[in-house]
Amino acid sequence: MPTPLCFQDFEVGASHEFGEYHVTAEEIIEFASKYDPQPFHLSEEAGKAMHFGGLCASGWHTCAMAMRMTVDNMPEGDSGSLGSPGIDELRWTKPVFPGDTLRIKSTILDKRESRSRPDMGSVFMHNEVFNHNDELVMSFNPIVLYQKRK
Amino acid sequence: MPTPLCFQDFEVGASHEFGEYHVTAEEIIEFASKYDPQPFHLSEEAGKAMHFGGLCASGWHTCAMAMRMTVDNMPEGDSGSLGSPGIDELRWTKPVFPGDTLRIKSTILDKRESRSRPDMGSVFMHNEVFNHNDELVMSFNPIVLYQKRK
Repeated sequence: MPTPLCFQDFEVGASHEFGEYHVTAEEIIEFASKYDPQPFHLSEEAGKAMHFGGLCASGWHTCAMAMRMTVDNMPEGDSGSLGSPGIDELRWTKPVFPGDTLRIKSTILDKRESRSRPDMGSVFMHNEVFNHNDELVMSFNPIVLYQKRK
Repeated sequence: MPTPLCFQDFEVGASHEFGEYHVTAEEIIEFASKYDPQPFHLSEEAGKAMHFGGLCASGWHTCAMAMRMTVDNMPEGDSGSLGSPGIDELRWTKPVFPGDTLRIKSTILDKRESRSRPDMGSVFMHNEVFNHNDELVMSFNPIVLYQKRK
């Protein structure tokens, strides 16, 4: 069993890259049908009629795909993460199209011990999601709680 | 066909409530299996072992459910929305459990005409998602682009 990550393991300024997610038209339409059924997320024609230029993924679908890459990159079993209180400055900078392959670059911006809970701390990250042409398609700043190693 | 919403239709300070989304264990597990397979989003037992207290939805799933309520509340056909460049200050304030019924309160914080694109403007919103016990489970500040009526 790999060791879970702890608050002490995160070094401010460090960054690492991970992930590979192949985006398909079928999955874009399946997600949008359930959660974001706007025309430009459901058909090529409606996407072409907008400034997007073609069928493109719901921004929330891109978030979900980024989360999947993040979980696949966590230590198996107990990851050490205690969940996230939220996200700052989420930006969708380019449409995500069928055929794109996504990856993530994650940088540690800051970390702070909890005042109320001495057994945990918050890690502040800046995550960038790129497509296979190295274009930034999304960036966001998650806050993640981690347990402290005793 | 209902008239699409335009930039001019949004009044700063106005708020309205909409939506009704019934959360099920099946859907929590289905979403998490695809996009956020952390143990506490996959089983009651693993959720109980964490501070969450039971099986709870991925935060991204809550975002997706909020988006579905938002789209169901848009004028049919052409909604007038030109998409969103992003979200500020997303916070997950309480876990979302099976059996919860969610709703949204949306308030217009501000709006600004685009300098570079005189045919559109940005609307800044504050969205709150409540469960059926009127507990705030999520809040976020979306930025949405709208066309201007000539």
